[in-house]
Amino acid sequence: MTTVSDILQPVELDLENLLVDLRSLIGAGHPILQAAAEHLFSAGGKRLRPGIVLLISRSLTPQGDLPVKHLKLAQITEMIHTASLVHDDVVDEAATRRGVATVHSKFDPRIAVLAGDFLFAQASWHLANLENLQVVKLLSRVIMDLADGEIKQGLFRYDSCQSFSTYLEKSYCKTASLIANSSKAIGVLSEVSDSNLDMLYLFGKKLGLAFQVVDDILDFTGSDQQLGKPSASDLASGYLTAPVLYALEEKTILSEFIERKFSNEGDLDKALELVRSSNAIDRSRQLAEKFASESRHAIDWLPESSSKEALLGLSQFVLGRLY
Amino acid sequence: MTTVSDILQPVELDLENLLVDLRSLIGAGHPILQAAAEHLFSAGGKRLRPGIVLLISRSLTPQGDLPVKHLKLAQITEMIHTASLVHDDVVDEAATRRGVATVHSKFDPRIAVLAGDFLFAQASWHLANLENLQVVKLLSRVIMDLADGEIKQGLFRYDSCQSFSTYLEKSYCKTASLIANSSKAIGVLSEVSDSNLDMLYLFGKKLGLAFQVVDDILDFTGSDQQLGKPSASDLASGYLTAPVLYALEEKTILSEFIERKFSNEGDLDKALELVRSSNAIDRSRQLAEKFASESRHAIDWLPESSSKEALLGLSQFVLGRLY
Repeated sequence: MTTVSDILQPVELDLENLLVDLRSLIGAGHPILQAAAEHLFSAGGKRLRPGIVLLISRSLTPQGDLPVKHLKLAQITEMIHTASLVHDDVVDEAATRRGVATVHSKFDPRIAVLAGDFLFAQASWHLANLENLQVVKLLSRVIMDLADGEIKQGLFRYDSCQSFSTYLEKSYCKTASLIANSSKAIGVLSEVSDSNLDMLYLFGKKLGLAFQVVDDILDFTGSDQQLGKPSASDLASGYLTAPVLYALEEKTILSEFIERKFSNEGDLDKALELVRSSNAIDRSRQLAEKFASESRHAIDWLPESSSKEALLGLSQFVLGRLY
Repeated sequence: MTTVSDILQPVELDLENLLVDLRSLIGAGHPILQAAAEHLFSAGGKRLRPGIVLLISRSLTPQGDLPVKHLKLAQITEMIHTASLVHDDVVDEAATRRGVATVHSKFDPRIAVLAGDFLFAQASWHLANLENLQVVKLLSRVIMDLADGEIKQGLFRYDSCQSFSTYLEKSYCKTASLIANSSKAIGVLSEVSDSNLDMLYLFGKKLGLAFQVVDDILDFTGSDQQLGKPSASDLASGYLTAPVLYALEEKTILSEFIERKFSNEGDLDKALELVRSSNAIDRSRQLAEKFASESRHAIDWLPESSSKEALLGLSQFVLGRLY
């Protein structure tokens, strides 16, 4: 079976160096942050985000070492992502992520706030030192979208009247914006044409949305072990995703369980059953496939290479998690 | 008696507009953030930081409206400052600031994390849109210094062996960096010479250090009411400031109380007595006066105006709090 590591193979070495750098950077300041950093970076996230940046860079720079600024951009991408995860875990009061204790539950929410701020601050600083105003704008937009997405998510909890576009906007802010804008930013550093910049943005946006929809489906179909968190935990927390919103169109009674926050015994199980017995999962799969396909088409113009193949393989891999 | 409002009078109107903007900006996203924003901005901070930026701008632009980018920079300065206060309060577990309940104690630490992130994110975004790479670098350096300062502060808690320069570095990071770099940044936008940029930086740095030393003295000499927090609360929390570090040179026994974290009954009172009966407060005052004087000299070159007078008056005002 294909793994993420297999897909990221063309940039494996660069990615490893980047992570070693990141770990020492965060550890340098403070013994407790050091521990938090070890904890964060040993949890073994998928490194998809910096991987995507490096793959795009590599597919545009077929020969020789990647430019230092390209590596930095990949690193900044991971810093922003990690910072937002650490703070989101505080805001969501999540006890685990990917099956591992979160920073705030293992250490202290105060350390988590500090670690996240430190990472955001480092990201801003390195970003400014890429000396490219367009790149600064793209990535600072991401930081704003991440905060916005977290706010939106809180705002629409248990709101069964929210529109599908609200869900997509939230997903864009929380997941797709970083991939879209960092894909475009590496294009800026690689000096591709404006129309190709738009295509890189589209590639990242659609890929990010596909990721999110797949994650949201797995919340209903995956096992606790596969997810690294209890299944249906999004629904239990009142976060309404594609499968629920589709199911609501078929089974209006679902809204009652949601609006009363699953407060009666058995509510959550009944709601789950309603989602699973509807066409919602199928429709969500089709949506994820549409996004994945749009993402692939957006990079038709990239020259053939193992890196391009890897970029095309990413969305296939993500969809593969559903089967 | 002179008040801060008196001093900021030359830029009063701009400052008021700026705060109205800020309040509506933060409130726009989320009802709970709205409440937090109201709470934050009604607490009536001194608005010194954006005030300084506007006064420098005004003293370099004597006639007509201030350029929009100058106003934006002042606003960004206040956003960064407020964001860091909100997160610091979470990290320090402070229940009140300026006598008013902190966001995390009134609402929830999770809302405080979100509100701070939102403000930092907005600041980054507006910063990038000033379209000036040098300004982006200066202010992103501030964000890094703020995180660094908070880490340093935690690292040296109850450490009676810390050097005076450690204390000054921490004070630079937490207080002076924002004033120094925003003063320089408004100089960049006003297109002053490089040597004058250095002087603006120096002005802000020394003024910030004077502010900090005065605050640290007041922790020992002020009343609870004057401080908006219990007096000697820094010492009680293990934050060792100028008065304590000077006192340690005279009264070595003080280190025992500190190292055992004032765990025996009466330790804190005895430590306070040791500081107050030494030359430490006097020496700290002299230090604050030296910083204030260096700050004033750094803007000798500014053309005479009511705004320049205000900038000169600021450090006098700060020192005045001591008498």
